[in-house]
Amino acid sequence: MSPDKRPAVISAVVVAAGRGRRMESKVPKAYIQLHGLPILCHTLMRLQRHLPSLREILVVVNREDREGVLERWQRHITAAGATSFIDGGESRQESVKAGVEATTDAADLILIHDAVRPFFPPEGMRQACRRALQLGGAILAVPLADTLKRRGLEDLVGETVDRKGLYLGQTPQVFRREVILASIRRATGVGGRVTDDAQLVEEAGYKVALVPGSTRNIKITTPDDLVLARGLLAVEEEGGEA
Amino acid sequence: MSPDKRPAVISAVVVAAGRGRRMESKVPKAYIQLHGLPILCHTLMRLQRHLPSLREILVVVNREDREGVLERWQRHITAAGATSFIDGGESRQESVKAGVEATTDAADLILIHDAVRPFFPPEGMRQACRRALQLGGAILAVPLADTLKRRGLEDLVGETVDRKGLYLGQTPQVFRREVILASIRRATGVGGRVTDDAQLVEEAGYKVALVPGSTRNIKITTPDDLVLARGLLAVEEEGGEA
Repeated sequence: MSPDKRPAVISAVVVAAGRGRRMESKVPKAYIQLHGLPILCHTLMRLQRHLPSLREILVVVNREDREGVLERWQRHITAAGATSFIDGGESRQESVKAGVEATTDAADLILIHDAVRPFFPPEGMRQACRRALQLGGAILAVPLADTLKRRGLEDLVGETVDRKGLYLGQTPQVFRREVILASIRRATGVGGRVTDDAQLVEEAGYKVALVPGSTRNIKITTPDDLVLARGLLAVEEEGGEA
Repeated sequence: MSPDKRPAVISAVVVAAGRGRRMESKVPKAYIQLHGLPILCHTLMRLQRHLPSLREILVVVNREDREGVLERWQRHITAAGATSFIDGGESRQESVKAGVEATTDAADLILIHDAVRPFFPPEGMRQACRRALQLGGAILAVPLADTLKRRGLEDLVGETVDRKGLYLGQTPQVFRREVILASIRRATGVGGRVTDDAQLVEEAGYKVALVPGSTRNIKITTPDDLVLARGLLAVEEEGGEA
């Protein structure tokens, strides 16, 4: 609920503009098929299923994809929940800016999500919406479970970094609309150097909460990730969804 | 090849003493079944298959498991390649110490590996052996691909950490026998605070190289990891092994 007790209006911005250079695939990564449908469709269907009150779902696409994969799959992507397609920019930061600026003025919250994260935890997403409404921003994150090394000279370990208090950021990331808009506009001109939306918000001085993500919430960017994704999808179809 | 051109003698220490509290399972994690065999067996079979010259494979076990799961699976674990079972200690550091001290004096290199990492990349393992022979130590690692946050007060993001030059450590970790022995003995008394074997070696002043690991080389410690593992195993059985 928003402060005046009407339900919060939430717009989603799903970023599908990445080229997927690490994927070794000619098909941009959001359009790679999982069980016969682009990854993007799986992500949209999950958003719809678990946050049916979403006012709109803007999909930020790469202009180069419009006459190829996007045209081919547009009907499916729309059926999966996309309400409009926005041309992205040269960097992730510019793409997010284009998406956020195209959302309706009526939105209280903007939910930003990677098209290639189809396994996000629904409860984490809802919790992020609640915290963002209270605080300004919230992102999904999981504690870093692995040993962290900083490389020194050449291929040598420079140091082992203390992992206490360290978290890996995921999406969805949710922000009050005025907070993300102000943060993005403040950052414009600095250059598209930020690959994480919350970082802009932090740098603008707003508070961002960490809410529990999931280790299943992988970002599908390499062929190995695709292997994991196919396994996860098979398990979820057997009824194992978190 | 070792410096005098005879093939290096390599002993493996596979650590299977963890209790698996995060697994929500009564069965210790190394003994949870994947396709009908304990995870430990899959790990041992892969070691054998890709490093057939291993002189010995010592499995460090939890004393409490000896009359339960270990007894039940001992024949399979031995068939998979284990040459002896060593009782571990209270911490990972003590378990590794027990395993390393039980290796043959004839070993040039000690390869330390987590029992619950059955998907390690064989070429990475061989490269780690070569680098460890030259340098003293080498570990598998992958560049950190996610945004890293340091938690501040309560559930708030304190800062975004620059991920440049940061790597996630994996196993196998390979060391010259005298290097790991000296490092472990130097650390004894400080307390079993280190969960990463290479850290002891670094702190003793030896060099450790980073060699390419794999994102498939997951450490199976949570129910979600088990989901990923089942998917990966299915794909590998279809012929997709890296």
